[in-house]
Order: sequence, then structure tokens, then C-alpha cells
Amino acid sequence: MTVDRETVRLQEDVLAKSRGIAERNRGWFVARNMLALNLVSSPGAGKTTLLERTVADLAGTIPISVIEGDQHTLNDAMRIRATGAPVVQINTGAACHLEADMVARALAELAPPQDSVLMIENVGNLVCPALFDLGEHAKVVIISVTEGDDKPAKYPHMVAASKLMLINKIDLLPHVDFDVSACIERARQVNPDIEVLQVSARTGEGMGAWRDWIARGYKAASEFSLV
Amino acid sequence: MTVDRETVRLQEDVLAKSRGIAERNRGWFVARNMLALNLVSSPGAGKTTLLERTVADLAGTIPISVIEGDQHTLNDAMRIRATGAPVVQINTGAACHLEADMVARALAELAPPQDSVLMIENVGNLVCPALFDLGEHAKVVIISVTEGDDKPAKYPHMVAASKLMLINKIDLLPHVDFDVSACIERARQVNPDIEVLQVSARTGEGMGAWRDWIARGYKAASEFSLV
Repeated sequence: MTVDRETVRLQEDVLAKSRGIAERNRGWFVARNMLALNLVSSPGAGKTTLLERTVADLAGTIPISVIEGDQHTLNDAMRIRATGAPVVQINTGAACHLEADMVARALAELAPPQDSVLMIENVGNLVCPALFDLGEHAKVVIISVTEGDDKPAKYPHMVAASKLMLINKIDLLPHVDFDVSACIERARQVNPDIEVLQVSARTGEGMGAWRDWIARGYKAASEFSLV
Repeated sequence: MTVDRETVRLQEDVLAKSRGIAERNRGWFVARNMLALNLVSSPGAGKTTLLERTVADLAGTIPISVIEGDQHTLNDAMRIRATGAPVVQINTGAACHLEADMVARALAELAPPQDSVLMIENVGNLVCPALFDLGEHAKVVIISVTEGDDKPAKYPHMVAASKLMLINKIDLLPHVDFDVSACIERARQVNPDIEVLQVSARTGEGMGAWRDWIARGYKAASEFSLV
């Protein structure tokens, strides 16, 4: 984008303000012993299906609430509501990502319980959400095997910003050209510390390891303090 | 995005400047009897594979050149170069879409011939590229059947901005839950005039109709005039 210096300064002001609100959200999560995860991916990588199954898998163990971000429609919120989890939908309109103040407003409405997990499903976009801290403990990037194993190299900012990469739709591996090792290697070239799990939200394969990852994060979050 | 009035005004200034450059590109295409198409989709919907096969299918009939947009890597340009088509790669860095001035600079380098087709592969992003006119004759949005049939409802701006929707990867239909009719119906709720073709860039199914669509557009473009 060709921008003049003044535009850049104003964009930086907006980002700085957003970062402040993100820190406030983070403090709120700490005070309530909550784990907050920010799920990011391309459109159609399977975030909502993953969430549906995750809610079912965690039922009776850890309370879970969901914030759904989409440009338009309430479809995803309705799908999550059907699982029984509390959910608030944010429609971002023209905006291509969630921002911390949207999450703050959704939290006021959602009122998630103490000692719980919050899943934030971001707008389907592998680019812009990488720039915006929502106050979450970790971004989880979901790559579907139908997208191609080069995606971590082509969208490096998102991989660099994420703590975990979920390789989803592994039930489709026999039908597509996707090299799992190459995908992981490309991700680690950008982010050597990124953790990787292979799952199929549709068949349930690998979902136990994802549930355990959440449980570990939840335990760690409950031990966080402000300083 | 929470923005103050001054930021909004500056963003409008940037968009207005970009629109001016897009019109200049459009005049350039008219003067050279060229058809310019802007291919937009999620990451991994199959734009590059589609282009590889399109270049092969058009060989010996219509000259074709390609501008590749990606945040990072030269992967796509190298794939297109292997087909023999002239190609220039634009790396947008942090930007999540191509803009008209980037295309203008790439055109200077690419120097496509008179009476030819230019394919612009945008950054994989179903949101932001909808806002930016590059001077193209038409946006072509590619939806892969692995992404889900709800995508036109969830990303309405892109569908509204596009002349043609290619439903790609139809070879995977037996393995996914994707209702082709529902997808088309949702697209037409947003854009009643959108044309739709079903293709598999991998197997070649439906690619003849896409080639014919390009040939018709190429003929129409050669009949355009400035006024």
C-alpha cells in the first residue's frame, strides 16, 4: 500500500490503542483464571467444525465459551449454540480481522465464567489477523491439507505469530497432494518453536492430542499472574 | 476497526488515489486490446494450479502473461515460469492485497504484448482484495469445494465484486460435504448476475468452459473503446 508518512503515523496510533485494549483484555483473563485462544486460518480451513467437536470433547471437564468473528452472517454462532456452549457473534462488516475492542465488548455480553476456556474464532483470513493482539494467550493457526503444503512459507507472519499449528482435514490426505513433513519444515523455518498437531475435526482423528494441549494451556493459564 | 474521522479521511484519500491509478491501467489495457482478469480466492483454493493449466490450454491460441501477488516467496512465479508464460512476481510484504500502482510497476517490467490476456493472481485473501480495483476487466473469485458451500454468504463483498465464480476442486466432491446448488444460490443472493463454472484444475474437468469464457472476454475486450 502506498501511504504517506501521516497515514503511517495514524495507523500506528490505531495499532497502539488496540494493543492497550488487548493488554486490558489479557489482565481480565488473568484475573479470571481463563485461557483465551485466538483461532486463525483461511476461510474454510475448518475452524467452526473444529470448535464444534472441541466443545463436545471438553464437555463435563472444562467450561468453554466462544466468540465468533465473521464479516457477515450468524451461521457460525448458530452452529456453536447448537453444541450448548455460550457464544457471541461479532460481525466485522468491512473489517477483515477482529480487534481487541470488539473482543472486549463481546466479553461484556458473553460474561464467561471464572476458570474456563475462551475460544475466539477470528475472521477467515491468513494475513491481517496476524497483526492484531486480542489479549489472547496464544494464536492457533489452522492449515487444511487441501490448501497446499506451501502455505506456511507464503503466509509467514501468521505462522510466526502462532504458538500452535493445527494441520486439519488429514482424512483428505489420500485425495490431495500435500506433504505433511514439508509443511512442518516450512513452518519451522519461519517459527522454530511452533508446535504442530495433525487432526481431522470431521473424523476425530488426532483430536485427543488437541484436547490435551488445551488442558495443559488451561492449567498453565491458571498459574499465570499479572507480573 | 475503531478509527477516528481523520484516519477515515486519509484512508479515503489513499483509496481515491488507488482508483485513479486503476483507471490509468484500464486505459492502458484498452489501448493494447488486452483482457485483464484479477483472480481472487482464499489461500490454497487452487489459483496457481488453475493458471498453470490455463496457460497450457491457451497455448498457441491467445498470448498470456501473468502477474503473481504474494506476501512472500517466488514459488508461484517459478511454477508459472515453468509453463513458459511471461511472469512477474510482486511480493506485498505486510500488505494483504495487490494495489493498482503495484500492477502498474509490474506491467512496465512485464511488457505484455498487444492482443493478449493478462492474468493477475492476487494475494490469497477473500476479504481485502475486494476493495481494490486494479484496472482489470473482471474479478474472478475461486471457491474450492473443500472450503464449504457457505463461503459466498460469509464473504459477500468479494462475490459482489466478481463477474465469475469458479467452483474449483470438484474432483474432491465425493469426499467433502459441499452442496454445489446451495453455494450457487448463496452467491446469487449477493450478486444475481454472477456467472458460475465448475472446474477441477487438477483433473481438467470443466476447464474447456473456462477457456471459452476467457476467449469470449478476450474478444469483447478487443471491441472496447475508451468511451
